[in-house]
Amino acid sequence: MEKDFLRRLLQELGAEENDVVYTDDLVVKVDGSASTTSKLPFQTWKDFGWKNVASALSDLRVKFAEPLLMLVSVTAPFMDVAEEIIEGVKEAARRFSLRYAGGDLNEGIEAVVDVVMVGRAPAKIGRVPNPGDLLITIPHFGYTSIAYKFWPAAAHPTVKRGVEMLKRPEPIWPLPLLECVTASMDSSDGLADVLWTMAKGVDIVVTQLPTTDDVEAFAEDRQLDLEELVFNGGEEYLPVFAIRPNCEVRPPYVAFAEVRPGQGNVWWRDKPLPWRGWSYFRRG
Amino acid sequence: MEKDFLRRLLQELGAEENDVVYTDDLVVKVDGSASTTSKLPFQTWKDFGWKNVASALSDLRVKFAEPLLMLVSVTAPFMDVAEEIIEGVKEAARRFSLRYAGGDLNEGIEAVVDVVMVGRAPAKIGRVPNPGDLLITIPHFGYTSIAYKFWPAAAHPTVKRGVEMLKRPEPIWPLPLLECVTASMDSSDGLADVLWTMAKGVDIVVTQLPTTDDVEAFAEDRQLDLEELVFNGGEEYLPVFAIRPNCEVRPPYVAFAEVRPGQGNVWWRDKPLPWRGWSYFRRG
Repeated sequence: MEKDFLRRLLQELGAEENDVVYTDDLVVKVDGSASTTSKLPFQTWKDFGWKNVASALSDLRVKFAEPLLMLVSVTAPFMDVAEEIIEGVKEAARRFSLRYAGGDLNEGIEAVVDVVMVGRAPAKIGRVPNPGDLLITIPHFGYTSIAYKFWPAAAHPTVKRGVEMLKRPEPIWPLPLLECVTASMDSSDGLADVLWTMAKGVDIVVTQLPTTDDVEAFAEDRQLDLEELVFNGGEEYLPVFAIRPNCEVRPPYVAFAEVRPGQGNVWWRDKPLPWRGWSYFRRG
Repeated sequence: MEKDFLRRLLQELGAEENDVVYTDDLVVKVDGSASTTSKLPFQTWKDFGWKNVASALSDLRVKFAEPLLMLVSVTAPFMDVAEEIIEGVKEAARRFSLRYAGGDLNEGIEAVVDVVMVGRAPAKIGRVPNPGDLLITIPHFGYTSIAYKFWPAAAHPTVKRGVEMLKRPEPIWPLPLLECVTASMDSSDGLADVLWTMAKGVDIVVTQLPTTDDVEAFAEDRQLDLEELVFNGGEEYLPVFAIRPNCEVRPPYVAFAEVRPGQGNVWWRDKPLPWRGWSYFRRG
């Protein structure tokens, strides 16, 4: 599995497992995806360009890092596909005030986008919280799961919202106080993945589902498993921060889990959380 | 054409056309390729990983930039292909004393490798020389052209040398004096591409073919067009420096061209150089 392999690799390199690479006061991130496995049927090539930028930005922002510049390497089968992807990249750069400084362009049989961001970080923030911390997030989980399942019926406002989140994610959420934050991750491979990744040497007990009335109503109406929608989605680009217990939780954030001493379990309603998040190379 | 598109894009971005991106005292580079268009039949996946690292390093080195760290994003159809590519990346990192700090791993239908390097540069070096300058290089052009054409017959030492250059390029050539250098490029898409790119607002007159007796003998023996072998190869990862006319040329460098006032022509034996170098999206 991809995550185990990356873990082994980072250990071998003597590198810390984190969402960004720190060097002096800089953070560097490369984040990409291939269209055959990651472009959704309702995404245009522009959306695909935008999405890859948003995904990299999300990783920097959750670490409180200010992006200094962005480079984008595009592989594409045709020039017009490359042009559309880069148009989407430029739209995202404008929207998020990023300095798009150039990149590389190559020909291949499918579109692959790799986004590089270099930023400056006021502090180094890892992934693993301390016992006693609270986990907070913006409670908008579930929309992307609904969009994956129901997108051709995008007339329903809840599906529509999910589709919009997947087409044009906007990871420019407000940030909590830096001095309150002990760890952080953004959810790109699903909330379950975030929780299992953060639960290293500690346990995490989820106390409520970070979602909306909309999503709950939609799930009830269609008799969907609400928990699966919330935990097993992906590409929400929503932040999860671990904060010290004495810190105040202000909107749009809610506390949804507690960190306890433990051996790396994630608990939901007294059972281990059954989902693990999304991963490549499952078949292998 | 890819290069025109990149040129337009950089103009739009207000960015200078160069092989690396400068920001304060840092240089950043992303350089990649897709296996269907860029992996040679005699390259292993390890070679392919190594080659992509060498290609990015070559761009930094020709700008006198010291690499601080490297990130590599690998897209691959199978986990074992990804592992081999990363093994080659690691071998290159060891050989070139690079800090391989991590990256990204994604699944796709072909292998795509994007290498990110962040370095520190003592000066900013562009691509366009001044009239009066000399162009110098290490005169090893021709080997890769021969390898492309003759690789199944790799028993001949000249072919063998070209194949080895393409499998494991080593862009760690000595550098001329920094204060002598007015412009630079490395040859990844062929010497003709370097010359036409450097000839912006100036003319370049090639005075001799930067190649070896070996290559000349091989060309004569097989009745090959020596000029085409030298100018129209690719992936040599050899440097071309423009130096001030009063600077001494020391081995392994030779002067092979002169920069004159002009409108952007490259001359060889009183005619415009007929080759333009290698480019993607030719059919488009």
